[in-house]
Amino acid sequence: MWLNKNITKQKTDAKTLSELLRRYFDIENVGLKQWIRKRFIERFYGANPHPFVIALQHPSRATLLGYVVEHQHFLHQWTRSCAYIIAKTDKDDVTLYELDNINTEFGGYGPEKPSHYELLLRMGESLGFPRSKLSLIPPLPATASAIRTWNGIAEKEHWLETMAAMHPLELIADRNLMKDGATVHYFDPSILDGKEITEEAKSFLREGYEADVEHSENALNLIQKYSPQFHKVEEVQASFLRSVQAFDEYLMARLQRSKEFEST
Amino acid sequence: MWLNKNITKQKTDAKTLSELLRRYFDIENVGLKQWIRKRFIERFYGANPHPFVIALQHPSRATLLGYVVEHQHFLHQWTRSCAYIIAKTDKDDVTLYELDNINTEFGGYGPEKPSHYELLLRMGESLGFPRSKLSLIPPLPATASAIRTWNGIAEKEHWLETMAAMHPLELIADRNLMKDGATVHYFDPSILDGKEITEEAKSFLREGYEADVEHSENALNLIQKYSPQFHKVEEVQASFLRSVQAFDEYLMARLQRSKEFEST
Repeated sequence: MWLNKNITKQKTDAKTLSELLRRYFDIENVGLKQWIRKRFIERFYGANPHPFVIALQHPSRATLLGYVVEHQHFLHQWTRSCAYIIAKTDKDDVTLYELDNINTEFGGYGPEKPSHYELLLRMGESLGFPRSKLSLIPPLPATASAIRTWNGIAEKEHWLETMAAMHPLELIADRNLMKDGATVHYFDPSILDGKEITEEAKSFLREGYEADVEHSENALNLIQKYSPQFHKVEEVQASFLRSVQAFDEYLMARLQRSKEFEST
Repeated sequence: MWLNKNITKQKTDAKTLSELLRRYFDIENVGLKQWIRKRFIERFYGANPHPFVIALQHPSRATLLGYVVEHQHFLHQWTRSCAYIIAKTDKDDVTLYELDNINTEFGGYGPEKPSHYELLLRMGESLGFPRSKLSLIPPLPATASAIRTWNGIAEKEHWLETMAAMHPLELIADRNLMKDGATVHYFDPSILDGKEITEEAKSFLREGYEADVEHSENALNLIQKYSPQFHKVEEVQASFLRSVQAFDEYLMARLQRSKEFEST
């Protein structure tokens, strides 16, 4: 299944397959950082962008509410995963990076700069979904399964593998991906100007669009810097690919959840 | 040894000892929070305050440098332990508390509010010890051993046990302990006014004196709130006592290190 999707759909002898795999994982010419960007774009922003990305180009209320309900659980896991990195690393630059990331995503920097989590709750409220009701909804099975994957990596594996599992996911909102071959943005940027979506939805989407660029860029630099030092390049690649699979299924869960709101 | 120090020095039959132990761990009348404060005061601020506390009343340059060298390692472990709590808890109030604590101790809140770690480095510099040299000095065995204890609790045990291992230690600088029976402060407060110590040393000590009061108070409230819910009261008491033993030895390591600076 993974081979079909990523390497070749044709019946292939062992020698050819081995060569194709070698080429797939080869970072010699591009470096680890660009390899990650390239694989991420292929998966979510290629000729057939991910169905959630298509739905988000001009999102309905139902799409945004599906996003809100499942994403609250994602952001809690995000915080836990980043905390595991701090708990395990002995590199101060990694600690400070992750601390800033958790502050931005979950803690916030005071009333002037609410966290991404707070902006998500406000987006939900602006669409008629109170935060008190939100926290009572458990994740869909696909979200819960993805969270188990991420938490398992964070709990058991090296902190570099956790970084590689989490931070490339912030590429989803990176507005620079089109320079590297993405066919569309995460959403059509024109929705930030018009009246298609609520002001709170704009604030939430704009924040990701702006903060996540820097987040994923800095994290990829740290991953590229430390993976060879710790002899973890292959583990980092494998962890990234496992996480991308989980993320794909998690994005489908957002769509699945949005169906519940289509008639309301 | 522990029995001698904490329960009784006399030869005691099993029944009496059992009753003495029951009374030692009893929180019925005072609550968990006050029990922790009381046991902490007994250990470090009783009739014979801890030798490091005595040395810190009017500290020499050597005492402060011993503090700086060993405490850099303590603060790194502090950050790791708090991060483990965030990684494992599912309580948002605990996550936000720990996040603020790591920001205050290690990350800082911008140039206006440098972290406790940064203030420690500046204190070292003001006493002629550059930060570049500092990070090259490994911890003394007693510090390393205490760090292993704290990291082991954080890695393996429930997040409440980690909270109970770490945050009561902030009581060391709590200026309200004298109301509860402490015989002295962490240091003689008059040193914050005179010219006995450098301005940087004042900034470092003042920060602990002010921030740690609130830190330990809020953490003890969270520990008291959640320990019964998670049926962890006894584990929390045991974890606190293990940590206090490690902390006692760690404070001795600060004194041991300071000897290296006595002739310089």
